[in-house]
Amino acid sequence: MITPDSWLAEPRIICGLMSGTSLDGVDAALFRCTPSAGAVPSLELLAFCTIPLPDELFELTRGIINRTENVDALSLAHTAFSSVFADAVRAVCDQAGLPMQAVDAIGSHGQTVWHQPVAQEIDSLRVASTLQIGSPSALAQLTGIPVVADFRPADVAVGGQGAPLVPLFDYHFFAQPGRDVVALNIGGMANITLLPAGVDVSQVRAFDTGPGNVLIDLATLKFFGKRFDTNGSIARDGIVLPRLLDTLKKEPFVVQAPPKSTGRELFTKDYLDKALEYNYMSTQPAEDPVRTVTEFTAWSIAENIRLFGKPGSLVVASGGGTKNPVLMEALARELPQAEIVTSDALGIPSDAKEAICFAYLAYRTLGGLPGNVPSVTGAAREVTLGVVALP
Amino acid sequence: MITPDSWLAEPRIICGLMSGTSLDGVDAALFRCTPSAGAVPSLELLAFCTIPLPDELFELTRGIINRTENVDALSLAHTAFSSVFADAVRAVCDQAGLPMQAVDAIGSHGQTVWHQPVAQEIDSLRVASTLQIGSPSALAQLTGIPVVADFRPADVAVGGQGAPLVPLFDYHFFAQPGRDVVALNIGGMANITLLPAGVDVSQVRAFDTGPGNVLIDLATLKFFGKRFDTNGSIARDGIVLPRLLDTLKKEPFVVQAPPKSTGRELFTKDYLDKALEYNYMSTQPAEDPVRTVTEFTAWSIAENIRLFGKPGSLVVASGGGTKNPVLMEALARELPQAEIVTSDALGIPSDAKEAICFAYLAYRTLGGLPGNVPSVTGAAREVTLGVVALP
Repeated sequence: MITPDSWLAEPRIICGLMSGTSLDGVDAALFRCTPSAGAVPSLELLAFCTIPLPDELFELTRGIINRTENVDALSLAHTAFSSVFADAVRAVCDQAGLPMQAVDAIGSHGQTVWHQPVAQEIDSLRVASTLQIGSPSALAQLTGIPVVADFRPADVAVGGQGAPLVPLFDYHFFAQPGRDVVALNIGGMANITLLPAGVDVSQVRAFDTGPGNVLIDLATLKFFGKRFDTNGSIARDGIVLPRLLDTLKKEPFVVQAPPKSTGRELFTKDYLDKALEYNYMSTQPAEDPVRTVTEFTAWSIAENIRLFGKPGSLVVASGGGTKNPVLMEALARELPQAEIVTSDALGIPSDAKEAICFAYLAYRTLGGLPGNVPSVTGAAREVTLGVVALP
Repeated sequence: MITPDSWLAEPRIICGLMSGTSLDGVDAALFRCTPSAGAVPSLELLAFCTIPLPDELFELTRGIINRTENVDALSLAHTAFSSVFADAVRAVCDQAGLPMQAVDAIGSHGQTVWHQPVAQEIDSLRVASTLQIGSPSALAQLTGIPVVADFRPADVAVGGQGAPLVPLFDYHFFAQPGRDVVALNIGGMANITLLPAGVDVSQVRAFDTGPGNVLIDLATLKFFGKRFDTNGSIARDGIVLPRLLDTLKKEPFVVQAPPKSTGRELFTKDYLDKALEYNYMSTQPAEDPVRTVTEFTAWSIAENIRLFGKPGSLVVASGGGTKNPVLMEALARELPQAEIVTSDALGIPSDAKEAICFAYLAYRTLGGLPGNVPSVTGAAREVTLGVVALP
């Protein structure tokens, strides 16, 4: 049986599960969380793996998100994700050479299928909502392991946006008393957590800076029919188109004061096409627009750090974008005073960061500790996140 | 903090919430659960009320169930139900004259929007699923009370149908060592739990017998434009049409051996129309078919008790159908050896039974005790049901 005091007293092995909105697979991170003298435990990663989403579940989930599927599909996917999550737990345990019974808890983010943090009116109620699927109760039965899941609704219920939830992790594992730090994640969008030297948790700020990989992916798909610019090799062969870059730099979101968040509904194929109009001719090399959006992405991240953070910070980067050296080099040129490292340098493998983060939030929930940062989400107060399902 | 031992050691005040598939409102039952010498606590009902579903949420939920709405509506309803559930808790506390802080836990069934207990194939997985909405995490934050919810998926995950979940309650509160008992619920469908004298929990059987109020409601709507035959007053003025009754009695579901379950997909308007064809002429009084389906409903319940139970049982009836004296009189004629009472006679108000049942299941989950009956649901084993959300 789990009580907060006994839970926090011993080292715990936790499996974090993350399935992103890009639907490219389920990340599973297994790590040991050992209590230390301070408030923050020490983390030791035991294994990390990603398993792909099975084809039919991928299509079904895309249909749910695109609103072409209905409640029957959602109910089916809700349970099917539990099976895939259980497979991911099994795979990461195998990789670590540990039996599943050695795992003390699973922290499962679930698959987001809807996120509407701006309240809508219904029956004179103002209702904001967020929906992650993958039944925690089924997952607990399938694995025999206690599951913490459904982290976002508690923050939404107390007036928060339910996102981002990574900043507490950034604060606990990356903040330094004597140094300004920026935690940067480059996924589809890019976001930063500002951690000035000695910052208190009540003053942490975190927000989206604009595109992460989204425009690069769109341009690569448009001009080369590929989903990603692997290792930035396409951008490497192109040059910056100044007029296109100047047009992109007019995007008002970049300089908008935080709190702010954005998504794929802004940075669409149409958005890219409109920027290219008059600024790119098809006689020019197709590598050039890919290079230019890569530069713009780096500039938009740097501009946010210059405007709202400290340009001489230690930048701790994670997410898929860190695998693109052209992007990272452009960022380094934009922020000459900064030191830019990936989170691997601080012991948190970049790919595994989100999965580790939700495992850490599960650890806190079972310890009776809050997981949201009200200054970041806009919540009225700190709350314990999630629901617990016992096997 | 809740641990099973401390939870079970003291009297607890629990609020049960039930929102049925008929979408006619949210039932809230508040009761005190006091440990006793035996395995079963004693229950004392403190208050019971039903609050209507607000109009827009009613329509939205109907659209979800009918598959005309998508994930955005589902996400909205998931959270909106939490608000309505919180209102129901507040209302029942007001009625009892108790502050909400006096409530130790909420047992929330949630609103079923899909139930597919027969496995479907997806990516070579066999997946059965069930989906109840009304975010437990949001409800815990809105009320400040621990919530247990989402009772069905754990049973489904171990191979059960996820339903019915009332039989354990029937067993604990209605079974008698020296007397055969049948717990009967007459909702849209009718179902029975068979509790022969001295039965062990491992041998309890429970199943649907056929229509409850569904055919009576359909006939009342067709001939009188009313949703219910209130107090059976329409049927009272009619006579039985023998040919129609004989035709209805040929329904194979009635005599089918259990386990079995049925629903509105069988007993539809078309079903009624087809039975009426050649067996009812519009020159006959419109009260007669209403009377006849009422008699058929009573017969189908009695026939199941005769075939699979003991006709001399104590029948403990609950559900809306118990408010129809014509139906209850017909049942008494069909079962002359039985003693028929409503659950009120055993201290469980008939209207409140389902809400009390899910509060009792919440009580068990927090006490670390299983809530399903494998012989009833077909599950491979007993499991602790549900997820827990702490405020």
